[in-house]
Amino acid sequence: MKCRRCRAPAVIDVRRHNAGFCRDCFLHHCREQVRRTIDDFDMVHPGDRVLVAVSGGKDSLALWDILRDLGYDVDGLYLGLGIGEYSDESGTYARAYADERGAKLVEVDLPTGSRVAHRAPCSACGLSKRHLFNQAAVDGGYDVVATGHNLDDEAAVLFGNVLRWSTEYLGRQLPVLPAGNGFVRKVKPLVRLGEREAAGYCVLAGIDYQVEECPMAAGNRHLGYKEALNAIEEQSPGSKHAFYFGFLEKASPLFTPEAASGQEQLQQCAQCGTPTPGEVCAFCRLVERARR
Amino acid sequence: MKCRRCRAPAVIDVRRHNAGFCRDCFLHHCREQVRRTIDDFDMVHPGDRVLVAVSGGKDSLALWDILRDLGYDVDGLYLGLGIGEYSDESGTYARAYADERGAKLVEVDLPTGSRVAHRAPCSACGLSKRHLFNQAAVDGGYDVVATGHNLDDEAAVLFGNVLRWSTEYLGRQLPVLPAGNGFVRKVKPLVRLGEREAAGYCVLAGIDYQVEECPMAAGNRHLGYKEALNAIEEQSPGSKHAFYFGFLEKASPLFTPEAASGQEQLQQCAQCGTPTPGEVCAFCRLVERARR
Repeated sequence: MKCRRCRAPAVIDVRRHNAGFCRDCFLHHCREQVRRTIDDFDMVHPGDRVLVAVSGGKDSLALWDILRDLGYDVDGLYLGLGIGEYSDESGTYARAYADERGAKLVEVDLPTGSRVAHRAPCSACGLSKRHLFNQAAVDGGYDVVATGHNLDDEAAVLFGNVLRWSTEYLGRQLPVLPAGNGFVRKVKPLVRLGEREAAGYCVLAGIDYQVEECPMAAGNRHLGYKEALNAIEEQSPGSKHAFYFGFLEKASPLFTPEAASGQEQLQQCAQCGTPTPGEVCAFCRLVERARR
Repeated sequence: MKCRRCRAPAVIDVRRHNAGFCRDCFLHHCREQVRRTIDDFDMVHPGDRVLVAVSGGKDSLALWDILRDLGYDVDGLYLGLGIGEYSDESGTYARAYADERGAKLVEVDLPTGSRVAHRAPCSACGLSKRHLFNQAAVDGGYDVVATGHNLDDEAAVLFGNVLRWSTEYLGRQLPVLPAGNGFVRKVKPLVRLGEREAAGYCVLAGIDYQVEECPMAAGNRHLGYKEALNAIEEQSPGSKHAFYFGFLEKASPLFTPEAASGQEQLQQCAQCGTPTPGEVCAFCRLVERARR
């Protein structure tokens, strides 16, 4: 197989594009997919300071690298989740990337006593991360938090939301959530790249990353959704892309009023000031439960 | 395991209900599921004459049997699709059921020269069946056509429509389509029963049915969708039910305007009189192509 762009021998193929790429053209392809996503969804505005949430895995390191290549004013944020050796190792990869490239990595640990992630379900971890990413961005004067959710992630989340017809989540599952109410803008510039492309990017760009998945995720529903969609994608390459982008284009607007109605009744959390529909925000309640 | 209803030894279990049943209580359970579906969706009105589309497979024979048990005025309709031995055998099962129970079976063959089903894709077969079921119902003075689509079928069709966000199909994917414009009412009273329950019903009710799937369906996308959903159901029993009925309750109304706009511009087919958005209906065009 030859590179679609320069006809040199291809080193990686992307089935849903029915294309192969040489090393340089593949890195170019990934950057272009991210550039296009940022443009299409107006994710980053001129002068914005971007904070990319870095786990040490392939997605977030690829995203950080691409955003730096594209010339954005971007720093990394590493969150110590306290999941034993897994977290220690993930931090090592995040720090190594920053050190070798002279990039700035902000580090935040979960508040003492609230290291619940190693016992609580994945939803609690997701909740904590969203909360602390936003807090760190506000504290550091950043305009945007960028996360490394890729096409496989978003398609699997969408599949789960659709299986349960969680209309409120469907209304909010967008690649960009605007700032407001004490939240900075949240963007997912990797949604046009699949998991395998993110891994390929790191390998070909010479970025070391943590290969193991989080040990807490094994057997969770999200992975089941990914496997089911992988089987569909195998049968019809491009299915995931059509599923996710078709949703954004044709269905997402139908669910937006549902999500908006949930947003109107927000007030400030009595403990941390984060906007919340209740008196105390979900994160502070989680921390309290863990301390008891 | 004991029967949920009478505590006798169970002969079949239904995981998503977390229940086992003895023979008699399982047949009762199936009838109650169908009765409830018909009531909930107002599928059959007093005095209606019902025509059930019978393929000779488990679903349509179970449906026919249950509708007769429930006391409806129901005849069977068998369509000779001309798919070689498969069709010959399916006709045998349909006729045997009718003969042994003294039930009336209407038989219709595809028009000579249009036996395209054995070469055309599954969508052409579906199109032909919908057309000829309606024609036979109109000709015979029936008010309702009932088909044996079960929960697995409908969930898989829904999954396919959602993967492509075919908003028009989503707006029309209902268990009952009202009469009008030359179409009789179309109903799917088996949507609360899974494939395995329909098979279990036939086995326990002593109904012989064609076990083989249509040879043309092997490897089609629909089967891929079924397999993907089976994996999800295995992980979380009840997922298919929640997916399909959650759709009807929470999402289907959002897509209905889309479907309605497609219905407004119907006219009569120049060849057969069926309502169609074009000059000649899709079935007549299919027959013409096959004759050429």
